[in-house]
Formats: sequence, structure tokens, C-alpha cells
Amino acid sequence: MVGEYDHPMKPIETCTVGIVGLGLMGGAIALALRSAGIIGPAGRIVAYDHDGAPLAEAQAAGVIDAGFSSPAPMLGRCDLVFLCLTPTTLLRFMENQMAAFQPGTLITDIAGIKGSIVTAMERTLRDDLDFIPGHPMAGSELGGFVHAKRCTFQGKNYILTPLKRNKPENLDYLKTLIYRMGFGRITETTAEEHDRKIAFTSQLCHVIAAALIDCEADTEITRFGGGSFEDLTRIAMLNAPMWTELFLENQTELVRRIEQFEGSLDTLKGLIACSQGAALEKRLHAVRERRSAFSLTADAAH
Amino acid sequence: MVGEYDHPMKPIETCTVGIVGLGLMGGAIALALRSAGIIGPAGRIVAYDHDGAPLAEAQAAGVIDAGFSSPAPMLGRCDLVFLCLTPTTLLRFMENQMAAFQPGTLITDIAGIKGSIVTAMERTLRDDLDFIPGHPMAGSELGGFVHAKRCTFQGKNYILTPLKRNKPENLDYLKTLIYRMGFGRITETTAEEHDRKIAFTSQLCHVIAAALIDCEADTEITRFGGGSFEDLTRIAMLNAPMWTELFLENQTELVRRIEQFEGSLDTLKGLIACSQGAALEKRLHAVRERRSAFSLTADAAH
Repeated sequence: MVGEYDHPMKPIETCTVGIVGLGLMGGAIALALRSAGIIGPAGRIVAYDHDGAPLAEAQAAGVIDAGFSSPAPMLGRCDLVFLCLTPTTLLRFMENQMAAFQPGTLITDIAGIKGSIVTAMERTLRDDLDFIPGHPMAGSELGGFVHAKRCTFQGKNYILTPLKRNKPENLDYLKTLIYRMGFGRITETTAEEHDRKIAFTSQLCHVIAAALIDCEADTEITRFGGGSFEDLTRIAMLNAPMWTELFLENQTELVRRIEQFEGSLDTLKGLIACSQGAALEKRLHAVRERRSAFSLTADAAH
Repeated sequence: MVGEYDHPMKPIETCTVGIVGLGLMGGAIALALRSAGIIGPAGRIVAYDHDGAPLAEAQAAGVIDAGFSSPAPMLGRCDLVFLCLTPTTLLRFMENQMAAFQPGTLITDIAGIKGSIVTAMERTLRDDLDFIPGHPMAGSELGGFVHAKRCTFQGKNYILTPLKRNKPENLDYLKTLIYRMGFGRITETTAEEHDRKIAFTSQLCHVIAAALIDCEADTEITRFGGGSFEDLTRIAMLNAPMWTELFLENQTELVRRIEQFEGSLDTLKGLIACSQGAALEKRLHAVRERRSAFSLTADAAH
């Protein structure tokens, strides 16, 4: 068993890659592996989902080679597994299926929160498995395998929060695969830093979008829309159970970020309410300068 | 004079159309008139700007037929004038140039606030001129004629807040022209309703984007960005003097909208902070439903 774990990973084109959860992200990963020709004729892409419909659809479209309605028979054949589940579903899945993985399997996930996952995996992962926590910064407000095409990885960010025990060669292996899937920039960091920053760039933005929709009932107001409102509220089409989970898992950090934002908003409101034109203009000018300084393209970075 | 005012507008293809202020929006209007072939060989597109550079560039590119460095000589030749100025600049311009317009000229504007403009025009407009206040709901975070191409009108909203004295045939004439320029939906309303709704769909969104940038100094945080943050802060690249003016001109309504948004944000924060998972999920689900019900495409509407 130890010997097998010490074997290096097979060349990716000959691997059997398993996708657990064939929704938007699982589907987009399968599509990326297939369409970039990463998995060759000697390799396979297989998927497990509790719902048979996306499995049938993906197999008919040639995106996966086989679909499984129970996870164990699939996990026993995989060299590499992508867990495309929400955080609590993932932890329950690992608890129930830990024995089913092949020795030496490289496992990774895509969950939007990393602290609880890293803590659990450091404690419970089998010694002969390698689990590298990850977070591809891509998605779409439209969920499900049927919309997987809408989620492209080209030039996008990918965060990895490796465990202390990860094998360096497996980490390199996964990073190479991530770039081949089209991502533009990989950032390695701790679970704590991930959760702290994601609270701002992702979760706070979703809370703001939700609040903006929440405070206006007149759907005809879009006659007065010119793009800003549409841009700010696209992500309000959120998957409620998943985002509830993500918000509550990162509660402390998210509440801190909301309060920080409330402070800035309140300052701007004060300048407007008190007709402080010069101070308001100065602050808006500083905002413009800072936004211009943000490097938003991952493409150029690696 | 009265007789001339009573003449119907010439066919648009033979008109001389004047653009006052050849920035992003003035430039985009000139481009739309030119590229859609709306102004024929017998008509002309002319522009006034205090800056000679965009005039020279637009003329070299064939977008305008002539540029003017002082307004009066141009205004004396125009059948139709687009005032592409900020609200206070516009009011000052009309005060100084009122005598320069040809009798019977149809004038319109594009300013993002309508109350003060409608009030002033009802009071001071010459009897032999027709001024129809308007607001094309299009733009770009990149200003100036050089970026005019980036501002497309296809399918966008256009708001008109007619004066009581507007000639119905001129209103029809302008509406036909607006559709020919590519806009998808025209809404006629009062200046008050415009200002009330625009406070939400446009100004509040810009304040939120500015606050979001204002509360985070680390420009490297974009390594953790996946699209939401980019979408929500694109409009933070704002023209500080113009937005200061728009915010302060609509102060009361905007502050009311900020406070309404603060209320919704605070409710969501409370649900997160107190781990009210079920209530949070229910609220996020309602947000998703409402966002889905918003009709965002102007295209289908006219």
C-alpha cells in the first residue's frame, strides 16, 4: 500500500479522472479536460452524481465516458478525483466514502470555503491518499450541467491551499493540469488567508447584490437601467442553499467585511447628505485611481 | 419667426445635427448618426467642443463634417442639437447661448438628472425653440471621444421627460431618431420620476461600487477575484466631477435610496451573524426569484 502511494502519478492523458457532482463546475471541468484533449484515448473521464439526468446527458455528448449512480465503484478506479460539492456535502461524502478510494489517489475539491475542509482533511484523510484543497475562481449565475458551457476557465484565477502533508510532485502535477485547463493564474496560500480574502472579493459582493435586489420590489424599474444595475445584480441569481452555507461557514470574516463596507458607504452618504462637493469629488477621484491600479487580468501573470 | 417655428422638421437625412460636447456620449451619438447612415449627403454632422483635439480626430475619421471652437457660429446652422454636457455646464451653456440658436431648432440633452433642467427650461427657453429633455441609458467607464466606440446603443433604454410645451410632432421625430440610433426602448416620464428611479438604478450602484473600492486598499486582492468583484467595481472608474454633480443634484432621493439599501444589507448581516440559516436561505431564494423576474432586455419591448 505504501509502495503504491510512493509511485508517481501516471501521465495525465492515461489517467482515469473522476468527477463527483456533475453540476455547473463539475461539468465545466469535464468539458475542459475533454475539449483541450488533456485526457487521451488511454484515459477516461467518469462521473458520479445522485441525479441520473446530467450523467446521461454528459455521456450522450461524449463529455464523460461513463456515469455512476453510486460513488464507490467509480472511486475504486480513479487516479484523480475532483470533488465538486458544497462544503458540508463534501465533508459528509469523504466521511462515508473514505474507504472507497484507490490507494495513491490524488483528490482535490472546488469549494468556496477552505478552513473547515482543511481542518477535517488534516485530521481524517487516509495516509495513502493525497488531498489538495482548491478553489477555481470561475462560475456562472446559471447552475447545473446544462449551463456548464457558460463557465469558461480561460485566464481565470485558481486558489490552492495545500495541506502540510501534500506531496510536492502531486502539487506540481495538479498545477500543470490547472494551467492546461485554461486558468491564467494560480495562487498558493493558507486556508485562513483564502477565507479572509474571499469574504471580500466573492461573498461580500454576493451579499451586496442580494441586498440591492432585496430593497426594490418594482421589476419595471429596469426601464431605467443602463448597465450598472444589471452588472451589480447578475450574481443575485444565486444558488440559495450553497450561498447560505458559504456565508455561514465564513460568518466572522464576512460580517467584518460587511461592516467595513458599511463604514465606507456611510462616509460617502455623509458627504452627499452634507453637500461636501469638494471632499466627495476627491474621494471619488481616489476610488477611480485605486480601481485603475487593481490588476484584474490573471492572463498576464503566470 | 413664429412662422418658421411652425414649419415641420426637415427629413432627418437632410438636417444639420450639432453636437455640443464631443466626449464619450457626444462622440457615440455622432458615430451612431454617421454609421447607421441616418444623415445623408444633403445633411451634416457638426460639433462644438472647448477642446480642439476630439474635433480634429472626429473630423479626420469622417465622423463629423466640421468642428467648431466657439458655439454660436455652429448653433446658427443647426436644425437639431444634442447637448452632451453635465447638468450645471448645460444650464450655463443655455443661459449664454440662448440667442445663438436658429428659430425652430429642436434641442435635446443627455444629462443624468432631469429635475433642475426641466425647471430651468420651462422658465427660460425661447418661445421659438423646442427642448426635449432626454437620458440615453448607455455609457462606459472610459470617457472621452477616444472611447466613443465602446459605447453602443444597441437595445439600450432611453428616457424622455418632455416639457408640457413640446410639439407632439417633434417628440415623435426624436423618438423615431432614437430607435434608428439603435436604442431598444423609450420610456416617457416626468423629471421627478426619472430622478427618483435613476437614484436607484444608476446613482446608488455607483455609490456602492465606490464604497467597495474605498474599503479595500490591497490591489493584489484581485488574485482572489472570480468575476463578481470585477463586475461590481467596473463602474468605480467614474468621472469624479460629473458624478459629484449628479449625486449632489439628486441628494435627497439618493440618500433615501442609500438608506433603503443599508436597511436590506443590515437585515442580511443580522441573519448571517446570528446563524439564521433557514431565514437566510429563504431570503436569498426570494432575491433569486425577484432578480429572475426583472426584465432586463430592452430589445423585446418596443
